[in-house]
Amino acid sequence: MFLKLLEFIVFSFYIISSVNALWPLPQYWNKGSTTLSISSDFSLKQTLKTDSLLNGQTKKILESAKERLLKFLKSEQYISPNVHFIDPDKSNTLSVLTISIATDTSELELGVDESYELTIPESQIDNDPITAHLEAKTIFGILHGFNTFSQLLYYKNSKFLLPFAPHNIKDFPRFSHRGLLLDTARNYYPIKDIFKTLDVMSWNKFNVFHWHIVDATSWPVVSEVYPALSEKGSYDPKHMVYTKDDIKKVIEYANLRGIRIIPEFDMPGHTHSIAESMPEIMTCIDVQPNWTKFSAEPPSGQLNPALNKTYSFLNKLLPELISYFNDKYYHAGGDEVNLQCWNTTPSITEYLNQHPNSSIDTLLSKFINETHNIVRKSGKLPITWQEMIVDHNLTLKNDTLVQVWTSKDVVKKVVDRGYSVITGSSDFWYLDCGHGGWLGNNVNGTSWCDPYKTWQKIYSYNPIDGLTDKEAKLIIGGEVLLWSEQADPTNLEILLWPRSSAAAEVLWSGPYDTSKKLRTPDKGALARLTDWRFRMVERGVNAIPLQPLWCARTGRCDLP
Amino acid sequence: MFLKLLEFIVFSFYIISSVNALWPLPQYWNKGSTTLSISSDFSLKQTLKTDSLLNGQTKKILESAKERLLKFLKSEQYISPNVHFIDPDKSNTLSVLTISIATDTSELELGVDESYELTIPESQIDNDPITAHLEAKTIFGILHGFNTFSQLLYYKNSKFLLPFAPHNIKDFPRFSHRGLLLDTARNYYPIKDIFKTLDVMSWNKFNVFHWHIVDATSWPVVSEVYPALSEKGSYDPKHMVYTKDDIKKVIEYANLRGIRIIPEFDMPGHTHSIAESMPEIMTCIDVQPNWTKFSAEPPSGQLNPALNKTYSFLNKLLPELISYFNDKYYHAGGDEVNLQCWNTTPSITEYLNQHPNSSIDTLLSKFINETHNIVRKSGKLPITWQEMIVDHNLTLKNDTLVQVWTSKDVVKKVVDRGYSVITGSSDFWYLDCGHGGWLGNNVNGTSWCDPYKTWQKIYSYNPIDGLTDKEAKLIIGGEVLLWSEQADPTNLEILLWPRSSAAAEVLWSGPYDTSKKLRTPDKGALARLTDWRFRMVERGVNAIPLQPLWCARTGRCDLP
Repeated sequence: MFLKLLEFIVFSFYIISSVNALWPLPQYWNKGSTTLSISSDFSLKQTLKTDSLLNGQTKKILESAKERLLKFLKSEQYISPNVHFIDPDKSNTLSVLTISIATDTSELELGVDESYELTIPESQIDNDPITAHLEAKTIFGILHGFNTFSQLLYYKNSKFLLPFAPHNIKDFPRFSHRGLLLDTARNYYPIKDIFKTLDVMSWNKFNVFHWHIVDATSWPVVSEVYPALSEKGSYDPKHMVYTKDDIKKVIEYANLRGIRIIPEFDMPGHTHSIAESMPEIMTCIDVQPNWTKFSAEPPSGQLNPALNKTYSFLNKLLPELISYFNDKYYHAGGDEVNLQCWNTTPSITEYLNQHPNSSIDTLLSKFINETHNIVRKSGKLPITWQEMIVDHNLTLKNDTLVQVWTSKDVVKKVVDRGYSVITGSSDFWYLDCGHGGWLGNNVNGTSWCDPYKTWQKIYSYNPIDGLTDKEAKLIIGGEVLLWSEQADPTNLEILLWPRSSAAAEVLWSGPYDTSKKLRTPDKGALARLTDWRFRMVERGVNAIPLQPLWCARTGRCDLP
Repeated sequence: MFLKLLEFIVFSFYIISSVNALWPLPQYWNKGSTTLSISSDFSLKQTLKTDSLLNGQTKKILESAKERLLKFLKSEQYISPNVHFIDPDKSNTLSVLTISIATDTSELELGVDESYELTIPESQIDNDPITAHLEAKTIFGILHGFNTFSQLLYYKNSKFLLPFAPHNIKDFPRFSHRGLLLDTARNYYPIKDIFKTLDVMSWNKFNVFHWHIVDATSWPVVSEVYPALSEKGSYDPKHMVYTKDDIKKVIEYANLRGIRIIPEFDMPGHTHSIAESMPEIMTCIDVQPNWTKFSAEPPSGQLNPALNKTYSFLNKLLPELISYFNDKYYHAGGDEVNLQCWNTTPSITEYLNQHPNSSIDTLLSKFINETHNIVRKSGKLPITWQEMIVDHNLTLKNDTLVQVWTSKDVVKKVVDRGYSVITGSSDFWYLDCGHGGWLGNNVNGTSWCDPYKTWQKIYSYNPIDGLTDKEAKLIIGGEVLLWSEQADPTNLEILLWPRSSAAAEVLWSGPYDTSKKLRTPDKGALARLTDWRFRMVERGVNAIPLQPLWCARTGRCDLP
């Protein structure tokens, strides 16, 4: 009897720990214990009202999303290692998901309504086929609802099933900016890798791809105004570049999945690749072997802010590059500017001698204001790295977004100066850390941001840590970041997934649970993430295993 | 003029750093500066004497190796990021590689002669077609010679080329045992992943696949005597097991590539998976939550050495398992035995009470002697983990091989007791380290063997560090080790390559260079490993990038 009871407890534990298998977790979710079968002629139908409301672009987004969902419904034979449920009753067959959209908005912008409500009954009413309902204010809520719906499906005994009905889900994101930064300059990624990254991002409800597209090592973007930039500055002007057309395809692909593309052309530091074609506007170009004095990493090189030709270059180039993209925001860079580089440049010293009221600081200010003005004249808003505010104390317009990559103290400083902030600390959300020193001849070299960020570490990051409610309102979200010194297409997915999923839940579901407690990487979160990791693998993603399969199945691998 | 000179120096630097593009580096290598074309009807021909000498199995190995080499010669369109050479002269076309083998040995065993000599002339003699020669004592030398030859080939302007002729290479391994351990129990690997691992191992001149085939979490090996072991103890008795036939295929695949398969059935610790079918011979089974007292990691569980039925089990099971394999050596395990587990087992206490001269130590000794006796009765020699010698102070026969996974002090201790040693320190050659704690709810958990082992760290390991020449003779080699808590097919290649290549060079070329200096991960090694990494990627291996491509090309990313 005692054993029987024990068995029951263990069994219940399985059921309890395995029901919550959505990732990221919805804000409100009621569920039951009935298993539905998916009808072989299951269909997605928008309501008549919705159908008449939608214009061309919104309709296109919807049709594309329906196609993807139906593909999962028909082909994803996913068997979870740790989600267990009862067999379906024959009468419980889900036949339809109706789709209802309140407004016809196809413009994807910061703060667009992404909420949705998903209702899945457990049985028929009046012998009508079982019908689920998905409602949203905008098409972007529908996209998230579809992804949630797809995660409810499991495969068992050659059947597509939907357990734990009835479901009642009311969901919306805690943060509006949920991003992933990919550095495509230190190593190059073909656009097919970017497409795949966007797919997996959308399943995780990310909505911003921060494209750190150029850097000191390479300039893969093809400019028609300055074609030499990529002809000489890319890794291969034929095979390792992004043309205007490539970029257009990436934007379309992303927007269809509810993801914005924010490009970053980092300046004035991190620009050595420009020197390959235009050394005359650069300084400290590839200083060797003592690059450490002039740059955070090799090769050194910065734009020269004292020369008129630098600004005429920017005034021609940036409007063109900005025109390649459709988002309201443009990231103008601004991290790790090396003042010693400028301090030791003869033409800058000469300029400072000729302009008595000037200094290195005013030159930096001039450079940033000029570039931000170009951004604004092109109808966009600038984003800057934190250094411009906290290290160089510049005063920028208050609608400038500031991206903070260090500590919560810096977040607070920036917020206190009235700026909205994108978070993502190198102590928590840098996906490249922990793989050792990559500089040559460095036997015991560790990465500067050691150790490796585990999913648990990533999950425990709180973007609003230490802020008052008022201050927290200025935190628009955060980004996980993959810098590519030691990354390229061979290990991209390994580095991104499922660790980025941990950040996705912080950003979507929020750092606090429904009882206002900080989320922790506990048994429940691990069980859900395990299920989600295996589902991503089933979808063809090289998402790394978090534990031995024995642990994934039993949940019995905790510290005491 | 000064600039011209500088250019010349830089250019020379490229050439010099790029010539040495073989990995692992041959013992002796003279080379020139002529580029040969590979004739479109290039052929591999054994000498008449060789042809008449070879028996069935040797011939089979040779034909299989020729096929693989010809495939590379016809399809590997490899363009190196950092190896540059002059264009070929029309008259310099390589038409034939002759193969000469001195003895007909197809048995692959510890210490078999693996030396070879490869000569590639730079021009014709008497208008004869240019002919290269490969000579070896055994077929296994030929296999290594083929792999060396394949690394000499590059693709340029739609042509297969062989630069830097004439080549004169005399090569042999510093260590006879050059291994890679893969743990297929914590997570399962289909045999296709093992096949691919064996391919890449052979290119790197590894010659031992240490198959850590079972462990606490799963028992994937199908026994005909005890079928319940895998039926209940594997992750999936249908899809996640290795049958006798699978194992036979793996052995054949490996042997054809000059690689021995040494199986390890770790006992008496790390055996929880046996408890799934035979709890009656086990103790401390999956103690929760305080598994830490009884095991290095969950799930806990050890064979019970006080029971007769344990020994009758082993006497039936081990001869069968041993018969699945063809190598002279069998790894009987023996690491991390938990004495507290046995100390607190009632049936063991009872045994000790009934046998006044016995103790936990004598029980352990009895267990190890019994299993080693079974191994010897089956015609094999046992390998044991270091603990049996240094922690438990057992006296084993002197032909027992001891695998040391900790420090050089332990290597010395074991050698001083007269045993031959397989090295591979967790401070240098553990490929799983650095990915954080995998136990649940462990926010700041790091891996116990932090940090991540970079290629530089791996390359700087000296298996004979601190030993006299006489002591060093007992070091038969070493192994890189991949434990699979956080590894499975999704990230296998990422974790293995090219880091294992760094160990391969230490084991083949030796820890000292020709001027008796310890090898260091300097510019030359990095340049060669970079070339080799890109070639492995071209061959379809997900070998991780070591640096940004800019660094790979220029070699200008060293610490000052």
